[in-house]
Amino acid sequence: MTITISIDCMGGDHGPSVTIPGALAFLKHQPQAQLILVGLEEQVRAELKKHHADNNPRLSVKHASEVVAMDDPIEVALRRKKDSSMRVAIELVKDGQADVCVSAGNTGALMAISRYVLKTMADVDRPAICSILPNQKGGPTYMLDLGANVDCEPHHLHQFAIMGAVLFQAMEGRRPSIGLLNVGTEEIKGNEVVKATAPLLRADHERGVLNFHGNVEGNDIFKGTVDVVVCDGFVGNVTLKAIEGLSRFFKQTMTETLLSKMGALLAIKSLKKLNPESYNGAGLLGLKGLVFKSHGGANAFAFEWAIKRAYNAAQYNVQEQLSAMITELMPRTPDPQAPGSTIQQG
Amino acid sequence: MTITISIDCMGGDHGPSVTIPGALAFLKHQPQAQLILVGLEEQVRAELKKHHADNNPRLSVKHASEVVAMDDPIEVALRRKKDSSMRVAIELVKDGQADVCVSAGNTGALMAISRYVLKTMADVDRPAICSILPNQKGGPTYMLDLGANVDCEPHHLHQFAIMGAVLFQAMEGRRPSIGLLNVGTEEIKGNEVVKATAPLLRADHERGVLNFHGNVEGNDIFKGTVDVVVCDGFVGNVTLKAIEGLSRFFKQTMTETLLSKMGALLAIKSLKKLNPESYNGAGLLGLKGLVFKSHGGANAFAFEWAIKRAYNAAQYNVQEQLSAMITELMPRTPDPQAPGSTIQQG
Repeated sequence: MTITISIDCMGGDHGPSVTIPGALAFLKHQPQAQLILVGLEEQVRAELKKHHADNNPRLSVKHASEVVAMDDPIEVALRRKKDSSMRVAIELVKDGQADVCVSAGNTGALMAISRYVLKTMADVDRPAICSILPNQKGGPTYMLDLGANVDCEPHHLHQFAIMGAVLFQAMEGRRPSIGLLNVGTEEIKGNEVVKATAPLLRADHERGVLNFHGNVEGNDIFKGTVDVVVCDGFVGNVTLKAIEGLSRFFKQTMTETLLSKMGALLAIKSLKKLNPESYNGAGLLGLKGLVFKSHGGANAFAFEWAIKRAYNAAQYNVQEQLSAMITELMPRTPDPQAPGSTIQQG
Repeated sequence: MTITISIDCMGGDHGPSVTIPGALAFLKHQPQAQLILVGLEEQVRAELKKHHADNNPRLSVKHASEVVAMDDPIEVALRRKKDSSMRVAIELVKDGQADVCVSAGNTGALMAISRYVLKTMADVDRPAICSILPNQKGGPTYMLDLGANVDCEPHHLHQFAIMGAVLFQAMEGRRPSIGLLNVGTEEIKGNEVVKATAPLLRADHERGVLNFHGNVEGNDIFKGTVDVVVCDGFVGNVTLKAIEGLSRFFKQTMTETLLSKMGALLAIKSLKKLNPESYNGAGLLGLKGLVFKSHGGANAFAFEWAIKRAYNAAQYNVQEQLSAMITELMPRTPDPQAPGSTIQQG
């Protein structure tokens, strides 16, 4: 089965100079894939030419006349740039021309345009961003939300837990344990939102819908205490970026200090599986179509990884599995008029 | 000048088996220090005897008949355990018998008892926990709050910024730049609390009180973009623990994978300055007395580091400098009855 991926080539801090080498590297390793490169045609073709790839039959270029800047307010990206590369790439998913879309652009804009173009799945209040991190048990830790929803209510976190569980099950083929990210494992700990979320997850656990482990702490992400870590998008985004920052710091410190080239080489090799670049690529969950987000600052290698994740998600029919399972599992949305259930746009 | 430190020997996951070896190691390296070991006398003396240190003239033992458990609700620790080692250690600071207190106990209980016994400084709404992390520029990054206040309002974050700035100035001898931890550097980014905090810090910057850099992201903590990173206690605690978890993961991965003992040795050596244990020890700021918090899971080496930080803070007269500078710098507390300024107990 050929899988077609639409790529927003203009997104990210570096645009085509990163996205196109990343896309070409991906294509080289993945003979089943077809790519639609979306962006300012002249720039995209120039970059392709530079890499002697302007005649690759598995590539097509789709012109889009506008670019969403990394600091564009959501309104500008959504309302005034209707022919942006980001939007056109997402529309290709909606129209069925692409199975999944990848962008390294402005997260807020990507989520807003994805919601507008693709629409949110029935029974989902807010789509979430789910990333995959390595853990000490050698498995993956899925973590969400990672930036789409900065102000959350308990029922949002509850839905994130369910969406994360569904994604994990589809991608990994087993039922995950779920942890609620908190400042302590004890039930008495936490902010008001987290304390009100735990009983919702416990109730799901009791009716057999979720395998809720309980509260987990920041260090549990890497311990692999649970398979899926649930948090709001503010905490998730800050934590993920702190992790990336520390990874870079480690690398720098090691290469600066190691006394022999061999030592550095061995150490870097041993840390390869922790390479933050290889964990690039987060899924936007809860939309009527698959979208993957790369970090804005990704290099070509990292961007290639985001495309790989998107490809895998399409290959494993994550979208169909989400659709099928979510209606069954998702709790009914509380009345937005009811106290404490204000739905805010993240 | 002799500095006296009261140690809550019963606190932390391991109690005297960690706190006492840590205290003894500290004493060995610090000839100016005097320690008061607080706890169940029999256990404390037994542990001292094990280390042949029961006759050290720079040590005294102060009996306390109760122990605050790591999962004790704050109310229990505060109201029902009036002779806990934690409380007695703090009271020694209040009574002037100790210059600073160190505990690895339950953070919530430590903050609550410290507030009750020492009282909060005038003009401070909520004390905060400030930790020190290494950064890529080779300097320290101060970060607060790290767990004392899980639900914050903008004026709390504003006060944290001022307290962090004062601590940094006292400990490092120069005026720090301040960053507000957020999901992006752009002004439009952030949750409601952070977006409402930035204008308060900008106003301080304009009147020359704070050197406010603007929003920073998680990766800026290790980049050293700013000297002091301000966030609420929930985000701070989760981030700090994620960082610790990743550090352990790195270490484990390296020692497992490195092909030669020499490579491992070199790598470990090069990472020594990133050792999470050596960054143990966080200051409780905004109280009428100095208290330092060690991680509950600290080993003896890490606990020794927490004592070192406490010693330095006492030596540099942090408490006096805080007292002197805070009244001048601290904004007046908004009316707790005013909308949006609800003061919640963390």
